Amino acid sequence: MMIAMGKRARLAADWLASAPSGTKDAALECMAAMLLTRQEAILEANQQDLAAGQRAGLSPALLDRLMLNPARLAGIVGDLRQLIRLPDPVGESFEASVLPNGLRARKQRVPLGVLGVIYEARPNVTVDVAGLAVKTGNAAILRGGSETMHSNRELVSAIRQALEETGLSADIIQWVSDPARERVLELLHMDETVDMIIPRGGAGLHEFCRQNSRIPVITGGIGICHLYVDASADLEKALPVIFNAKVQRPSVCNALDTVLVHQSVASEFLPRVVAHLRSAEVSFRAEPRAQEYLLQYNTGAYLEQDAHTGSEQVHYGAQVGAILPQDVLPAGPDDFDTEWLSLVLGLKVVDDLDEAVTHIRQHSTGHSDGILTEDAANARRFVARVDSGVVYVNASTRFTDGAQLGLGAEIAVSTQRLHARGPMGLRELTTYKWVVEGDYHVRA
Amino acid sequence: MMIAMGKRARLAADWLASAPSGTKDAALECMAAMLLTRQEAILEANQQDLAAGQRAGLSPALLDRLMLNPARLAGIVGDLRQLIRLPDPVGESFEASVLPNGLRARKQRVPLGVLGVIYEARPNVTVDVAGLAVKTGNAAILRGGSETMHSNRELVSAIRQALEETGLSADIIQWVSDPARERVLELLHMDETVDMIIPRGGAGLHEFCRQNSRIPVITGGIGICHLYVDASADLEKALPVIFNAKVQRPSVCNALDTVLVHQSVASEFLPRVVAHLRSAEVSFRAEPRAQEYLLQYNTGAYLEQDAHTGSEQVHYGAQVGAILPQDVLPAGPDDFDTEWLSLVLGLKVVDDLDEAVTHIRQHSTGHSDGILTEDAANARRFVARVDSGVVYVNASTRFTDGAQLGLGAEIAVSTQRLHARGPMGLRELTTYKWVVEGDYHVRA
Repeated sequence: MMIAMGKRARLAADWLASAPSGTKDAALECMAAMLLTRQEAILEANQQDLAAGQRAGLSPALLDRLMLNPARLAGIVGDLRQLIRLPDPVGESFEASVLPNGLRARKQRVPLGVLGVIYEARPNVTVDVAGLAVKTGNAAILRGGSETMHSNRELVSAIRQALEETGLSADIIQWVSDPARERVLELLHMDETVDMIIPRGGAGLHEFCRQNSRIPVITGGIGICHLYVDASADLEKALPVIFNAKVQRPSVCNALDTVLVHQSVASEFLPRVVAHLRSAEVSFRAEPRAQEYLLQYNTGAYLEQDAHTGSEQVHYGAQVGAILPQDVLPAGPDDFDTEWLSLVLGLKVVDDLDEAVTHIRQHSTGHSDGILTEDAANARRFVARVDSGVVYVNASTRFTDGAQLGLGAEIAVSTQRLHARGPMGLRELTTYKWVVEGDYHVRA
Repeated sequence: MMIAMGKRARLAADWLASAPSGTKDAALECMAAMLLTRQEAILEANQQDLAAGQRAGLSPALLDRLMLNPARLAGIVGDLRQLIRLPDPVGESFEASVLPNGLRARKQRVPLGVLGVIYEARPNVTVDVAGLAVKTGNAAILRGGSETMHSNRELVSAIRQALEETGLSADIIQWVSDPARERVLELLHMDETVDMIIPRGGAGLHEFCRQNSRIPVITGGIGICHLYVDASADLEKALPVIFNAKVQRPSVCNALDTVLVHQSVASEFLPRVVAHLRSAEVSFRAEPRAQEYLLQYNTGAYLEQDAHTGSEQVHYGAQVGAILPQDVLPAGPDDFDTEWLSLVLGLKVVDDLDEAVTHIRQHSTGHSDGILTEDAANARRFVARVDSGVVYVNASTRFTDGAQLGLGAEIAVSTQRLHARGPMGLRELTTYKWVVEGDYHVRA
């Protein structure tokens, strides 16, 4: 069954590859309209998934991801229509040149072919991926989580109907309805018909794909992200950046995991970080030296007499209260290798920029890492030495996102080195071919 | 042992990544000079390999590939020095933009990291790959064929000495001296330390790497190449292109394997192809319709009376003689899926451009395929519908080569779809990172 699906996908992709942009955009509009037309059935199917999820005891967070309602569906449809407005990368020529012998060579963007996308309990991914695939001329085989089975059946059915009504093959988007895990393994072995595997899920899924796939896998989406606060950093400005990177949306891959602080500013800055982020329910894991700075602070080094009550108490700016041992746990052996995905932040003091770079090279997943500094030379050294998908100077790691970085759409954030790194948009779902034109040229 | 080698390579790569271009070029010059200084020992070691090869009964072709002499070594050294003159891709910025919120984003080329290169009996590949790796800031682990063991030991020793004398780590270039096949498998599993596997050899090696590697593999170098002679082609000019593509160097991957001829010109053109290429010892495999055209020609349809002798004989232009059945064998079931690498050429008649495209899509390895035509619309349709690494209009397939297409150097010809297609030069041995600079920007 999977093999036949692959062959149908390949055939559909072969034809879609030379479809004009207008046809693909018409299909996207038809998909958007069809989702709205069939809204009632889609939401009803989603209710079945939610009910099954509740019976199965899924967590509230997971149930929330699973849930569709008219507003969310409208958002999904809006994203599809947004795709229509983006330029079609397919057919673009680049690196054109005329060689000394008169041959005219250029590269021309073409679709990748067939995508295999393996994801979990988010029904919006089904429509996202279908839209991105159609826009870029690729076919896709979707393997969603079993929790979304009913929703996906309805969504894929609507998408396929829309493709057919546009005069395209419904097989551009196929869906693996069988929830058995073996189907994933079969998909990973279909190197004859599938060109790229995109896992969207946790580290376990990525590792499983990488170990078992005969098809190139886009590894990504796992971010152990760092910000290094340099000696020269503007600490006033650094604090909100760290707050934003950690607190704005802690459950995502570009959220901050570890703050590294130069030792010369650690005693001043670390207590402020703890006081400020604690107000947003962040808890901390500090390595011994960071803990020392914080406890030193707490145990009286900065004690001041309160002007009103006359009693002594810890005081540092308006927002800083006493730092209690339970606020700052000692970092465990694996804590700096943990992607928190929650309101936990690792704290470490470093001697200098080199130690920060060494720590990042050792513990980063190559997703998003940055420096906060006023020293241009240090910024340059950090950028030169830290080799992550996105390297920041004086900005929150939360910008690692296709829409934020101007790509218009995003299929994944790659943390691997080949093909594409960082946010992958439409162009990263294409490859190129060389086109070489001559006048019956022969090689001498 | 392999694991430790990987760790050393990673460490060496980490440092080399930020080495200035001048240092890398100095290392290349030192490598070139060192190879000449140690020429005597290198050639002596090569003699040992040749003697062992002769005892082992290697074919003359293989022994020739294995052989080094002062002229060949001078050529290898010349290629190294050529690399020095090419621009360093590492550090190049591209796709720079200022986002609406003022963030400045750009991509910056960085080395891939550690290359694993698995190749066969060509000692020149050892130096080639070492040079390309150093130029692009990558470390490499080389696994050459056991036939070249003595030569490679000397070559690698010279290269490592040169690296050290330049102040770089010798571990930038490491060599797997153990000829056991298990070492290859170990290398393919070293995804912690190796970033890209480049097999250079036959289809079997590529398939083995693809099936067993946990590291991205650059599949390539296997070319079943086609030229389609359109109804409108200038047949006078088409003939030398086909001759060049097949005959100039038949043992390489960009040599022509199959000629597809439009039926409207088949009766005129096919006999000319056979007559012209037969003069260069080419033999032919024709599918039934092509054979029919050729035998028709032979059995008298074109008999003319000789003006001098009065006797009737087959005659078509000066160079065409009788076509005998032994000249044109019927194509076997696998012949159109065979990369000949020798003076054999498949012949097939097609009804139209669509049938040519369908044949190519089915039998091509995605390496190099072209059309010979005077019809611009047909050229466009062919280019749009044929999705090979390099698609030609009115040129020989033999141009698929990094130097020929202006890359200056070549590590491989990719027939896969991700990362790079067609000839891969220096830039294709790099990846990029995003660099995003702000003024303590936070995400809204």
